[in-house]
Amino acid sequence: MSSIKGIAASNGIAIAKAYRMEVPDLSYDKKDVDNPDKEVERFHEALDTSKQELEKIKNHALESLGEEKAEIFSAHLLVLSDPELIQPITDKIKNENVNAESALDETANMFIDMFKNMDNEYMRERAADIQDVTKRVMAHLLGVTFPDPALIDEEVVIVAEDLTPSDTAQLNKDFVKGFTTDIGGRTSHSAIMARSLEIPAVVGTKEVTDTINKGDMVIVDGIDGEVIVHPTDEQIETFKQKQARFEEKKEEWAKLKDEATVTSDNQHVELVSNIGTPDDVAGVLNNGGEGVGLYRTEFLYMGKSQLPTEEEQFEAYKSVLSQMKDKPVVVRTLDIGGDKELDYLDLPDEMNPFLGFRAIRLCLERDDIFRTQLRALLRASVYGNLKIMFPMIATLDEFRQAKSILDEEKQNLQNEGTDVSDKIEVGIMVEIPATAVMAKQFAKEVDFFSIGTNDLIQYTMAADRMNERVSYLYQPYNPAILNLINNVIEASHAEGKWTGMCGEMAGDEIAIPILLGLGLDEFSMSSTSILPARTQILSLSKEEMASYKDEILSMGTSEEVVEFVKSKAALQ
Amino acid sequence: MSSIKGIAASNGIAIAKAYRMEVPDLSYDKKDVDNPDKEVERFHEALDTSKQELEKIKNHALESLGEEKAEIFSAHLLVLSDPELIQPITDKIKNENVNAESALDETANMFIDMFKNMDNEYMRERAADIQDVTKRVMAHLLGVTFPDPALIDEEVVIVAEDLTPSDTAQLNKDFVKGFTTDIGGRTSHSAIMARSLEIPAVVGTKEVTDTINKGDMVIVDGIDGEVIVHPTDEQIETFKQKQARFEEKKEEWAKLKDEATVTSDNQHVELVSNIGTPDDVAGVLNNGGEGVGLYRTEFLYMGKSQLPTEEEQFEAYKSVLSQMKDKPVVVRTLDIGGDKELDYLDLPDEMNPFLGFRAIRLCLERDDIFRTQLRALLRASVYGNLKIMFPMIATLDEFRQAKSILDEEKQNLQNEGTDVSDKIEVGIMVEIPATAVMAKQFAKEVDFFSIGTNDLIQYTMAADRMNERVSYLYQPYNPAILNLINNVIEASHAEGKWTGMCGEMAGDEIAIPILLGLGLDEFSMSSTSILPARTQILSLSKEEMASYKDEILSMGTSEEVVEFVKSKAALQ
Repeated sequence: MSSIKGIAASNGIAIAKAYRMEVPDLSYDKKDVDNPDKEVERFHEALDTSKQELEKIKNHALESLGEEKAEIFSAHLLVLSDPELIQPITDKIKNENVNAESALDETANMFIDMFKNMDNEYMRERAADIQDVTKRVMAHLLGVTFPDPALIDEEVVIVAEDLTPSDTAQLNKDFVKGFTTDIGGRTSHSAIMARSLEIPAVVGTKEVTDTINKGDMVIVDGIDGEVIVHPTDEQIETFKQKQARFEEKKEEWAKLKDEATVTSDNQHVELVSNIGTPDDVAGVLNNGGEGVGLYRTEFLYMGKSQLPTEEEQFEAYKSVLSQMKDKPVVVRTLDIGGDKELDYLDLPDEMNPFLGFRAIRLCLERDDIFRTQLRALLRASVYGNLKIMFPMIATLDEFRQAKSILDEEKQNLQNEGTDVSDKIEVGIMVEIPATAVMAKQFAKEVDFFSIGTNDLIQYTMAADRMNERVSYLYQPYNPAILNLINNVIEASHAEGKWTGMCGEMAGDEIAIPILLGLGLDEFSMSSTSILPARTQILSLSKEEMASYKDEILSMGTSEEVVEFVKSKAALQ
Repeated sequence: MSSIKGIAASNGIAIAKAYRMEVPDLSYDKKDVDNPDKEVERFHEALDTSKQELEKIKNHALESLGEEKAEIFSAHLLVLSDPELIQPITDKIKNENVNAESALDETANMFIDMFKNMDNEYMRERAADIQDVTKRVMAHLLGVTFPDPALIDEEVVIVAEDLTPSDTAQLNKDFVKGFTTDIGGRTSHSAIMARSLEIPAVVGTKEVTDTINKGDMVIVDGIDGEVIVHPTDEQIETFKQKQARFEEKKEEWAKLKDEATVTSDNQHVELVSNIGTPDDVAGVLNNGGEGVGLYRTEFLYMGKSQLPTEEEQFEAYKSVLSQMKDKPVVVRTLDIGGDKELDYLDLPDEMNPFLGFRAIRLCLERDDIFRTQLRALLRASVYGNLKIMFPMIATLDEFRQAKSILDEEKQNLQNEGTDVSDKIEVGIMVEIPATAVMAKQFAKEVDFFSIGTNDLIQYTMAADRMNERVSYLYQPYNPAILNLINNVIEASHAEGKWTGMCGEMAGDEIAIPILLGLGLDEFSMSSTSILPARTQILSLSKEEMASYKDEILSMGTSEEVVEFVKSKAALQ
């Protein structure tokens, strides 16, 4: 057995066989064959197996991802039935007496090259379809496995370099017990998704794909960030006990589901959830979330071939708002660009996308997109307790522009006779250092702040949080960050406004006592973090934490802060 | 005539014919020829002209750039004399009766492909050499001009999309009267270089390469950021007068060369220069600089095939220090990475290089490189008034590590019996928001701060200063920036330390009154900005400016600040 350390990205223990997510080696030898009919037969078998798989994936996608996403697989199925592609391949096998692999590869490449070079978007997409499908058929000819997370039908732990959002969207919790990746951190997409799916995960191990083979027995310990390969029976037993203790703890937490979040000195703070889709609301309610502190609307825009309509968006917002009843729902307007791209918007490549044309910057220029979203939100506002939040605000001007576009659309809707709530709070994400510094000026004009620590930390430290070489600078407890947070909270309270936090830091057990002491009003986190956070907060005195504030804010390093908090606050 | 607006990047007026810096269209038709001997002759003529050009460029490079850089051109000359390349080309022309262009192109490509795919760095470099040289010969065969800034021998204004550092290094001030580019801003390399060469320049015009043809008469107005194409005689006259007035002003400024920089209420501030090489010291002294506020040491490392030796560096530092006598010289240790790459270091590609592995981050990991530089600096310290400054410091830990490496090398040198000055101040660049926020903590440990506004602004606003789509957020006068600057200055004074500024902002006429009011001690800028800045400061009252401080710091937007300063401070 061997043990690999990584970053604990999602709580829990998974024990299962490894499933490797990697495109297999598809190289082949071109060979002359004596029996071409046999080759044609092999080719047709590979075709048929591929079709069956694609049918399965398509049906799975239909159920879990919706019609639009499933269309891709229909297109792939069409390719496999296209005589204009299939006939030349079988002809080639028979006429040239070559093996099926080379006939498939050479013929497909000819079509791919031809379509690719056409000045026609549709044909170029067909080239991409043929490429995808050919790989699958080739894998079957070579007898190697092509990874399809949607097709997994036994209990496994997924081992991958990284998982894309579309990979994770295909995961079936009944079979995928956990995953572990080479790259990523607590704030990478795969980690956030793991917590949202409540699948144990260890990321950023640097080496799981080098060390773990398909079928190896693996333990993923998402509590302490460890992966055990080839565990001994004894280890399996130990981790099963740890798993049981974790389940017990979860049951303890569950008892707090309907409790209010009050400190030991009787101060209430709000514990709310970060969500991505209307389906996530179930998790909020099951985990006792007191509201939604961050509804990321990007998922409505991603993995599509065109912008979502006002109607589609209205339905999604209405669904979240009405499920949440009178509980607050903070919706963040579109935050696209940076590491999140949309093919159909054709954004320019940038040298430093994190410092580039994204979020509100894009929305103010493309106000057609922005207005559609705002109209959908305003129309949905009557179904619940909506708060609108603009991301990546760097200047008062940007906020004023965004606000005035919102007011215009409100007026337009009212002129059209559409009901709009008159209680919508309008706030901003504080995730750019300038905005944190200028909080006093902003507090006069916004209704609330929500601190986005993931970005605020990377800009304040000038360190890309996805770049491993500078990840040592991603320091949530650095006193610089804490001073900026303090500045924002103080500024908001001076104007009678409130401050929340929707970055990963809000659910962190070292950060919680500090943030409580700084006076943070609302903590927004993954739904699965809410009950552990509530447990912790119930045991803390806000007054005591506040008494450490000045000392913490004048410290020099992140390490000092952590050491101090550990010595003072009863950590779980 | 037409007028194009751009960014005034370097003062002065240039009136001359346009020289287009662009690789010409090198496409050709493959043709059968009746007289192959004639083609061979054409080919040899193109070869000879290319050789003559390369000889000229090589000699120019030898003089201005040194032996190492000139070697590239020797290699290119060798290629042009290599019978293994030349013979196959002439054979092809004769045997296949094709024109010289196709024989050159096809033969060269064959060699390029062959060398490129070899697993041997040397051979791959040869492929690159052949590629470069082939382009030049092809240009001569096609009768089009290949741009070589070093070969310019008549008065011109260069018109280009952008100029690389190596382009600008080849410029001869006697002939190149000015330049104008499509892209770039006041802080791009080409703009900084223009000011250092004292060549008028207008950058970021977006359209000069679309609008201006080779040989067009052009006026570049680097004072007001305007380019006039096909000026009328009247306009030429008007701009000649403007040029004369500018020259007069320069003469006025020159009178202040040996004056102290004191405000109208008799407060002294230090006006110092940003330099890149020992050759720049002449400009510092000619412009009355009171010292060097930023010696960028990157030039020692760039455009080379290996790291500079300790001895090479020692000579450069000694030269600057002894030329400057007892005047202060602040040397910034290596700031590489980000937009400045070194081929021989083989740094990994990064998604957001500005938020990546650069400057002190790289130096702390590659401390071999760092120690060599520090040893060279320490050895040179006895020749003048050296201050050492670390770039991109984000945490106290980084500063402590860098400082302890410096102390170790000092001890090592002293143990070896080498003299080291015991008066070296050690400070940091403040260019990361975290560091500006934490200035109070840093001020206890550093000897001085120098605020690097170019980076501080881009990180604080989360906007890449090279990205045109977000350039509206590059706001030096944004109150967030001014508050951070104020925090740094106050923190340093509270500990009896001093604060300088070495970003472009220090020489800006709107910023100067504000910075004076905030109490900035040292202003470091392009040498050519020193005398205008001194003129302005002589007319300002520091006390008056300080009385506006609180009002300015509580403003909401950059526009408010600019308007206010314009209304209060007597601007030139």
